[in-house]
Amino acid sequence: MAEGSEAFTEAQVIARLRTIFASSDPRIEVGIGDDAAVVVGEKRQVMTTDMAVEGVHFRSDWSTGFEIGRKVTAANAADILAMGALPDYLLVAIGLTGLEEMSWIEDLAHGIKFEADLAGLHVIGGDISRSEKVIISMTAVGHCTRAITRNGAKVGDSIYISSLTGWSAAGLAILQENKSPVGEEKAIALREFKSPTIDYGFDSSKATAICDVSDSIIEQAAQIAASSQVQLHFEAKLFANSEEFLPLQSLAAELSVDIWQWIFGGGEDHVLLATGVDLPGLRIGQVANGSGLSGIPAFEKNRVWSHFR
Amino acid sequence: MAEGSEAFTEAQVIARLRTIFASSDPRIEVGIGDDAAVVVGEKRQVMTTDMAVEGVHFRSDWSTGFEIGRKVTAANAADILAMGALPDYLLVAIGLTGLEEMSWIEDLAHGIKFEADLAGLHVIGGDISRSEKVIISMTAVGHCTRAITRNGAKVGDSIYISSLTGWSAAGLAILQENKSPVGEEKAIALREFKSPTIDYGFDSSKATAICDVSDSIIEQAAQIAASSQVQLHFEAKLFANSEEFLPLQSLAAELSVDIWQWIFGGGEDHVLLATGVDLPGLRIGQVANGSGLSGIPAFEKNRVWSHFR
Repeated sequence: MAEGSEAFTEAQVIARLRTIFASSDPRIEVGIGDDAAVVVGEKRQVMTTDMAVEGVHFRSDWSTGFEIGRKVTAANAADILAMGALPDYLLVAIGLTGLEEMSWIEDLAHGIKFEADLAGLHVIGGDISRSEKVIISMTAVGHCTRAITRNGAKVGDSIYISSLTGWSAAGLAILQENKSPVGEEKAIALREFKSPTIDYGFDSSKATAICDVSDSIIEQAAQIAASSQVQLHFEAKLFANSEEFLPLQSLAAELSVDIWQWIFGGGEDHVLLATGVDLPGLRIGQVANGSGLSGIPAFEKNRVWSHFR
Repeated sequence: MAEGSEAFTEAQVIARLRTIFASSDPRIEVGIGDDAAVVVGEKRQVMTTDMAVEGVHFRSDWSTGFEIGRKVTAANAADILAMGALPDYLLVAIGLTGLEEMSWIEDLAHGIKFEADLAGLHVIGGDISRSEKVIISMTAVGHCTRAITRNGAKVGDSIYISSLTGWSAAGLAILQENKSPVGEEKAIALREFKSPTIDYGFDSSKATAICDVSDSIIEQAAQIAASSQVQLHFEAKLFANSEEFLPLQSLAAELSVDIWQWIFGGGEDHVLLATGVDLPGLRIGQVANGSGLSGIPAFEKNRVWSHFR
């Protein structure tokens, strides 16, 4: 084993994490350090789990520990928002190779803490294990008075996204093509790939259906259409109403990529996709009678994002 | 990639798991299939997470998928019991290499479901990802009216275990030495290593402190002693009051192992270690003034179990 593995014990890592994740929230009766955490629960709770694997969901040569911590936390927080719920608690299980520096582990933890604070999540527990690749598996818990699922979209609703999708896919393309990140658009795309900005302020209280775009609009919209037994009809021209459209378009042109591939086929933006009437965000289409999706511009569909390939 | 990866899609795996984990519990408003699960929460909740990695916590050449599923679920359930709480919900994130047969994945899921049923846990959500080794990361949620932590042990309390520790370590020794499993003791040890029996019926309501022996009595008792600012004094002769002592002793003799190494230094039995007066289980010592542990027979301390080595 390399130096890292001898440099600290599990107890030392846990002690550092305990300090970084310390919370004085009165709802946390027992935090990190016992067999389990003890918290004040709410009547209707929302729970989700998400695993991220080095080389599949993140790369340590592309992202700092801080960015990776933010990204995985954001993915879990977005799933809580995607039920129309408010985030409360976060549990974090981490697999470490033993080659990490303590400073990298701390950086990862600070990234988790930073995003958790944005989301309103309190880290209440965790686990550390050995593994051959870095693995980060989180469970987020939130609460709501009314859960908004994927099956409530109604004919006559409009379709909204909380902000423009495609930036994370654009960032991935820049990294994969090894383009040097010059220009504001590239900087935004790289930032969104490394740690997507979650629309924590999006008011989904009037939404009839909602989910977050972890895979792609195509995948997630198809799920809403199937669950709600309606058709989701998109109007590509509406995307141009987003201030972010032109910069993304100029980046797509520069990299010779079809922008619709990024917007409809890109994953990991964790933008919220919702149906309803007069919702905030960008209106991109309407719910119609029928099934499946319509109005999506043609692009190379086999490049739709998936973590399971 | 090998055959397995082409044989089924993520959606097909999720569909199978959804069927296996189906629950009609009325507290589950939204189960597997949306962005997150929606459940009825309790006022005081207990939450814990535990990650298990192929080659570190289990080996597919030693254990079936069913046994592995049971073992990881048991470890999580035990952490809920170790707070004096009752298990409610389970979230399961799995990393798969893509080389698994669908039948192995189903076997794993059936093992999780079997142990979850024993524990009273309902699988409400999960995640599947690609990884180089099989990874199973779970979060268990339970509830209690009064959480029993590690810091309540009082001078004058006795120390109890819910059943004899050491069987899992004995099973590991048999597998590591490649001894053929002949005889009832070996069968018990192998079974306990592969899927430890959790003492779900242990009444901890009068316990002053409690934890589960995931690492070793030595590790966990030291945590109770430190948290409670007392000394835990063990009486080795009391272990012989367990019906399980003689069979474990004969197995230790056969493998030329010091039985105290298994009992005090072995991990993963997930037996409950508790302090209090007139508790059920096996009385093994008492709580005294002072700090740390006393009365532990000498054995090779550097072989104490740890997942982080």
